[in-house]
Amino acid sequence: MFDLTKCSKKELTQEYENQKKKYREYLALGISINMARGRPSPEQLDLSDDLLNLNKNDIELKDASGADCRNYGVLNGTLRSRELFGDMLGVSAENVITCGSSSLNLMFDYISQCCTHGTLGNDPWFYNKNRKFIAIVPGYDRHFAIAEYFGLEMISVPMTPSGPDMDVIEEVIKDPDVKGMFCVPKYSNPDGVTYSAETVERIASMKPAAPDFRVIWDEAYLVHDLYEEGDFLANIFDAAKKYGTEENFIAFASTSKITFAGAGLSAVAAADRNIKEIMDRLALQTICYDKINQARHTAIYKNMDDIRAQMKKHAILLRPKFDTVLGVLHSELDGSGIASFNSPRGGYFISLNVNVGSAKYAGKLCADCGLTLTGVGATYPYGIDPTDSNIRIAPSCPSVEELEMASKILCSAVKIAACEELLGIKN
Amino acid sequence: MFDLTKCSKKELTQEYENQKKKYREYLALGISINMARGRPSPEQLDLSDDLLNLNKNDIELKDASGADCRNYGVLNGTLRSRELFGDMLGVSAENVITCGSSSLNLMFDYISQCCTHGTLGNDPWFYNKNRKFIAIVPGYDRHFAIAEYFGLEMISVPMTPSGPDMDVIEEVIKDPDVKGMFCVPKYSNPDGVTYSAETVERIASMKPAAPDFRVIWDEAYLVHDLYEEGDFLANIFDAAKKYGTEENFIAFASTSKITFAGAGLSAVAAADRNIKEIMDRLALQTICYDKINQARHTAIYKNMDDIRAQMKKHAILLRPKFDTVLGVLHSELDGSGIASFNSPRGGYFISLNVNVGSAKYAGKLCADCGLTLTGVGATYPYGIDPTDSNIRIAPSCPSVEELEMASKILCSAVKIAACEELLGIKN
Repeated sequence: MFDLTKCSKKELTQEYENQKKKYREYLALGISINMARGRPSPEQLDLSDDLLNLNKNDIELKDASGADCRNYGVLNGTLRSRELFGDMLGVSAENVITCGSSSLNLMFDYISQCCTHGTLGNDPWFYNKNRKFIAIVPGYDRHFAIAEYFGLEMISVPMTPSGPDMDVIEEVIKDPDVKGMFCVPKYSNPDGVTYSAETVERIASMKPAAPDFRVIWDEAYLVHDLYEEGDFLANIFDAAKKYGTEENFIAFASTSKITFAGAGLSAVAAADRNIKEIMDRLALQTICYDKINQARHTAIYKNMDDIRAQMKKHAILLRPKFDTVLGVLHSELDGSGIASFNSPRGGYFISLNVNVGSAKYAGKLCADCGLTLTGVGATYPYGIDPTDSNIRIAPSCPSVEELEMASKILCSAVKIAACEELLGIKN
Repeated sequence: MFDLTKCSKKELTQEYENQKKKYREYLALGISINMARGRPSPEQLDLSDDLLNLNKNDIELKDASGADCRNYGVLNGTLRSRELFGDMLGVSAENVITCGSSSLNLMFDYISQCCTHGTLGNDPWFYNKNRKFIAIVPGYDRHFAIAEYFGLEMISVPMTPSGPDMDVIEEVIKDPDVKGMFCVPKYSNPDGVTYSAETVERIASMKPAAPDFRVIWDEAYLVHDLYEEGDFLANIFDAAKKYGTEENFIAFASTSKITFAGAGLSAVAAADRNIKEIMDRLALQTICYDKINQARHTAIYKNMDDIRAQMKKHAILLRPKFDTVLGVLHSELDGSGIASFNSPRGGYFISLNVNVGSAKYAGKLCADCGLTLTGVGATYPYGIDPTDSNIRIAPSCPSVEELEMASKILCSAVKIAACEELLGIKN
């Protein structure tokens, strides 16, 4: 397509009219498509239905400790589940706690713990009225919501193709009020960026001014490759050991997008003293997590080979969806001068950057057509995208046909917004 | 048995020697029996094994809202599970949130929420350096541990046979720093007391000075009757409606001692505005709870009749255990003048009160024999029983034979402790 920013006013007006005509046709279709959240599709959920068909004899009712999984006890999770997450995260089972269905809950709780009780002998974060947290942008709205809830002022640091801008971070962490940051180091949400080995090394080597600086290392898409050859992510704990900074890192993972989004397992991994501190609090919170669900999972997914085989099945379902969206974006927007987007090799999102100041308007045009996108702005702290340009696309749940249609509507909306801006039409 | 407090020194010395001889025999047996916690026995867990043998077609994969239980969503829990807990707790399903496996976690989170963010527009409890909480004693150690963790100074109020001493409570709540109290209103832990209708009415009518006073109404043993005719507990929300105090009450329940202790469901029930406030926080904490486990439970336990039938089976297993312990306590301690105990009609505990200043020593004598009791003192705030007299007995897990032996050891220990005190022997 021709570059809208370089064409004549006549050409632009022509294109604007074309797109408005298309848009009216879309409007008339009365569609209802949701691309708001990274939800697995029903077909992806079907991949784990074996979990629904186990019987008593199929699962190990007794943990390695001898405890009956049906009863109280084994607060840190069954050994088998800790071994599985340990292999996934590249740490020993002793440094893993397997929990309930939500890793978000574990992150929330960890931040809560640091706020009210501090970590490893340091003052509670709440004692510091100027407490701050680094938000890599664009990023995951639920991370930002936790920071906001606990009054951590967010400092935005831009994402680059190799991970967060480390030059900026290395400056920001000189401030002892800066208490940590959220990272999605593999197939980041929404950019699909995997941190380069150099970035991981620089993160591992950080010596923040705050002695209680904590990196929430959210391995949400650790094994979620779309292609045969996945991105490589260096092991943060191995890297940190070289610098004696292991205690700065708390890693999280879950099977939400491996097995059932709503009924999987979550886990936290950390250095010895952090694990002990988390366990001390967990002992007050609960008597144990659901070990039966842990045993169900490890009855079917015994090791990383089983996990990888499962992820290949997910990829077969997800790839055509990403390809469909990317195909439309390429054909409609390449060379248009009004938008750019990533082509992720894994994860759940495509990040579309449109003309400054036009994302919200494009989102509204889509919504009016019955196409729900992630709330525009949600990928930034406080829900405010300072340049109003980022749109997150979640292609996992709709069908390929719906995605084809949705992507066309989105491109049309983006072009209408761009034309109006270039033509000086007030929307 | 004769009254030790009234017998001659010679008789006392004789009894002391008798008991020491018995005790040495117990010591030689090398037993290992644990009566520390209210854990269901393996046979009780077997009662719910149907939960392990369901398959996909047995459960309702779709919630009433149309949501797939395997996926994200339905943060407040499946409608069926909320209806079940609503029936159990005597409230509408709209006033229930069904969650994960631990109601303790929900209580912890609720207190945490009040501490860091306040409730219904009131200041966070943390803003009040003198924040206090009522601890009904003896009580549940895990409740006290939560209050201690959040720096709520505990004010002990004694339990009576009809519930907490309301005369004391009505005085204590005149202090606006007193922010609430923990109650186990049916078959209280450890006394097995069910609050009388009059006590419930007085609790409902309370107008505490603190506008954000909250009663943590822990219905841990709501349906856990040992006998055909269970104790009656009045509905706190119905009572509170008469006084306009519904918002003072947050009720909790779980199926931990109905189905699997480690893999059941939990629920919170409260007035509309409280439910909304809890949901607003939950939305930051997690995307949803395990709805598959909720669907599994309601596939088998469809209504209160199913729950009651299940509890009758538990009672058949538990009753002989309680009867065994109580039988030994009666035959060994009745008329001795050195101990008293309750005969609960439900719940999980027998509360034994021994001579002032001798519980810890008796507990130590038991421990030396291989008999583990709940840490003596644990039933009081900060683990300190001011009169060192309460011993909590949890008869659910050991076998009847073990309980017979354990109870004899315990009685012997109690008598040795009493004799030494009466004889002026320093232990």
